[in-house]
Amino acid sequence: MIPVRAARERNTNNVTASCNRALLTSNMSALKRSPLAPERFPRLPKVPGVLLQTARARIKYAGRDDLLLAELARGTTVAGVFTQSATASAPVQWSRKIADAGRARAILINSGNANTFTGVQGIADVRTTAAMAAQAVGCRSHEVLIASTGVIGEPLPVARFEPALARMRRSSHQASWLQAARAIGTTDTYPKGSTRQARIGNRVVTLCGIAKGSGMIAPDMATMLAFVFTDARLPAPLLRALLHSGVARSFNCITVDSDTSTSDTVLLAATAQAGNRVPRSASAAELKDFRRALNELLTDLAIQVVRDGEGASKFITVDVTGAGSPGSARKAALAIANSPLVKTAIAGEDANWGRVVMAVGKSGVRLDQRCLSVAIGGVLIAREGERVTGYDETKVSAHLSGEQICIAVNLGIGRARSRVWTCDLTHDYIRINADYRT
Amino acid sequence: MIPVRAARERNTNNVTASCNRALLTSNMSALKRSPLAPERFPRLPKVPGVLLQTARARIKYAGRDDLLLAELARGTTVAGVFTQSATASAPVQWSRKIADAGRARAILINSGNANTFTGVQGIADVRTTAAMAAQAVGCRSHEVLIASTGVIGEPLPVARFEPALARMRRSSHQASWLQAARAIGTTDTYPKGSTRQARIGNRVVTLCGIAKGSGMIAPDMATMLAFVFTDARLPAPLLRALLHSGVARSFNCITVDSDTSTSDTVLLAATAQAGNRVPRSASAAELKDFRRALNELLTDLAIQVVRDGEGASKFITVDVTGAGSPGSARKAALAIANSPLVKTAIAGEDANWGRVVMAVGKSGVRLDQRCLSVAIGGVLIAREGERVTGYDETKVSAHLSGEQICIAVNLGIGRARSRVWTCDLTHDYIRINADYRT
Repeated sequence: MIPVRAARERNTNNVTASCNRALLTSNMSALKRSPLAPERFPRLPKVPGVLLQTARARIKYAGRDDLLLAELARGTTVAGVFTQSATASAPVQWSRKIADAGRARAILINSGNANTFTGVQGIADVRTTAAMAAQAVGCRSHEVLIASTGVIGEPLPVARFEPALARMRRSSHQASWLQAARAIGTTDTYPKGSTRQARIGNRVVTLCGIAKGSGMIAPDMATMLAFVFTDARLPAPLLRALLHSGVARSFNCITVDSDTSTSDTVLLAATAQAGNRVPRSASAAELKDFRRALNELLTDLAIQVVRDGEGASKFITVDVTGAGSPGSARKAALAIANSPLVKTAIAGEDANWGRVVMAVGKSGVRLDQRCLSVAIGGVLIAREGERVTGYDETKVSAHLSGEQICIAVNLGIGRARSRVWTCDLTHDYIRINADYRT
Repeated sequence: MIPVRAARERNTNNVTASCNRALLTSNMSALKRSPLAPERFPRLPKVPGVLLQTARARIKYAGRDDLLLAELARGTTVAGVFTQSATASAPVQWSRKIADAGRARAILINSGNANTFTGVQGIADVRTTAAMAAQAVGCRSHEVLIASTGVIGEPLPVARFEPALARMRRSSHQASWLQAARAIGTTDTYPKGSTRQARIGNRVVTLCGIAKGSGMIAPDMATMLAFVFTDARLPAPLLRALLHSGVARSFNCITVDSDTSTSDTVLLAATAQAGNRVPRSASAAELKDFRRALNELLTDLAIQVVRDGEGASKFITVDVTGAGSPGSARKAALAIANSPLVKTAIAGEDANWGRVVMAVGKSGVRLDQRCLSVAIGGVLIAREGERVTGYDETKVSAHLSGEQICIAVNLGIGRARSRVWTCDLTHDYIRINADYRT
């Protein structure tokens, strides 16, 4: 039966594609691949308890899948971290409640429409699509997490979800991680995935994650989404603690343009198929390896998002040390990473280190400029509030001509530190965000 | 004697200019004049008690004056507002103290070097140049205010100040307001000036101001400076109160790229030549007209700075109303004005109003998105958290094709309001800040 279904599916898709010349073609193919992209999508193994299906719902993009349904085994626990925006999307408002409850049987993700600032209708539309997904999976609506990214303020074309989900229900075809990563993308120039293994007690568990995001993304305010799946058995409160501390040092340490999206969502689902013994708490010794693997995976995905930053030509690591508190270290690092003048200087390979001083100065953190040091590419430029004698700019210029830029600032007043990743600000950022319609 | 001196002066300058092919030429002539520039520099009358002199000190720019000395009559009171940066320049640290004391006899301003992050030497250099200016004017060093903008982190070439100030001392030639405004510029594409008259009691007083600034300015982190002179007789505490409230609604309401400079300085000097009766307090009824004139002048200069914003092609007014407090109104307005995605959308004449919603959402102000309204160019786009029915984008697009853009957001929860001015983010911003050296 399956080959027949697959053939029919393919026909349907062909017809669909030819009907949609008016729709946008996939940005993922239209946009030039980021020069900072990894060579290839990694090999991700299956995660027991997770079934992936993708479909073409024609929400905005033609000629590509734009809907992903992840079916989760009974007993799956979930945790989520969502945007802090006060204009959070309807799907974020919905999924927050479900993540709080800690259990889910499915995640439905669409690209092309964010269902944000869509009022009462937007909330109703989430309820409708959750019910459709619940029917496809055979669970209750309140066990379906929803994530949507794309244009803001336009009503979700709910009618297009119905036939796509019906096809998924009839088909037993499973999508690969690569197909899943592609379906959730908008202006991403490459699909993003990562995997790790970890030992919990005497069991080896698998973690697989996919993400989308490319800064705040033209043409229609797309956003950052990430979904991580594991077969570990972990109660929801534990999962929540692990995810929050992991996100704090990964997705919350990246910035492309300082614009916070209305749809940002990171979900972690644990299917409990690995049969490991349940750890007592998030700080239990037997979770050390899992925590390491999760943090590595989240950081890998976060860095992949920055490396696909709109118009990015350089990947920048900002290290702030010697701060009075972790909060002020982070604030200073983000001030450097978000400064348009720092980002354009790096795009221009200009060793204009004074702009780093300016950014730290404006950040509002407690400091004494007589204690401040600045290094770029490992070359110490200024120490104790002034340029070092015999400073040789040629070494810094050589570093800046590369693709991986390191900026290090020591505030010299404490022991707290923070690392933040970002990219440069180039003509392509303006082209992507300003010139899209012209 | 004066013509002879002037002739000698001219010769010296010619020699100087030809010796300095290696120096940068004036950016003010090299950069394309902003399309938002006013037609001409306004006619500014003399302010009794203020003598202006300019000179070519060859600090960085060749073929133009880069030093301005404003000599102030005995009895002049002063007030200042300075950058909040924790890496404030040596001149800012010096001038803050003098402005606090409330009296000055001279202001010395140089362009091309900010004397910022220059350590103990930088502080010593300020003392030296203040002593030179004091000698030229015939006052004490502690009556000389100093302002410097330009490159950060390089030692001030103090030796170049000496001959320039000596020439000023020997010459009785007075500079015009236009020459003064040009001397203090760095990457400004036009000189900025403004004047007003006001009545205090039965006397008419004059206010004249000049400013420099073009965002945070390539190539070397230049900054915003403004100097306002009046012949009114006003005690320093009064002057301080008037300046602070005036700056709050003018210079503190503009942003080009969110980068706060290390040298920002606004000074107000009152020479007491008008012979008006001294008002009792800053809130005295007889100061109402002066306050109006000062606020108008400061706003005029502030708007001229934004209209010279690096790469600016559109002047944007952001109005936030219905906020819970003035602070949150301002925070929301600045979040919109600083959002790279809002600024690039306007550069691209793209009616992407969802980005305005995003910016308000990320600002951190208290709001209920179900009460939020958005209008662009007077056209109501969204009301009570969703798009209005029958929204017609063509009217908004027509507005965006113009040079003056108005964005209005009503938070719908209070009565506080804030207005902020900014410009769009264009390819020219990147070109000016990234491509300068290539």
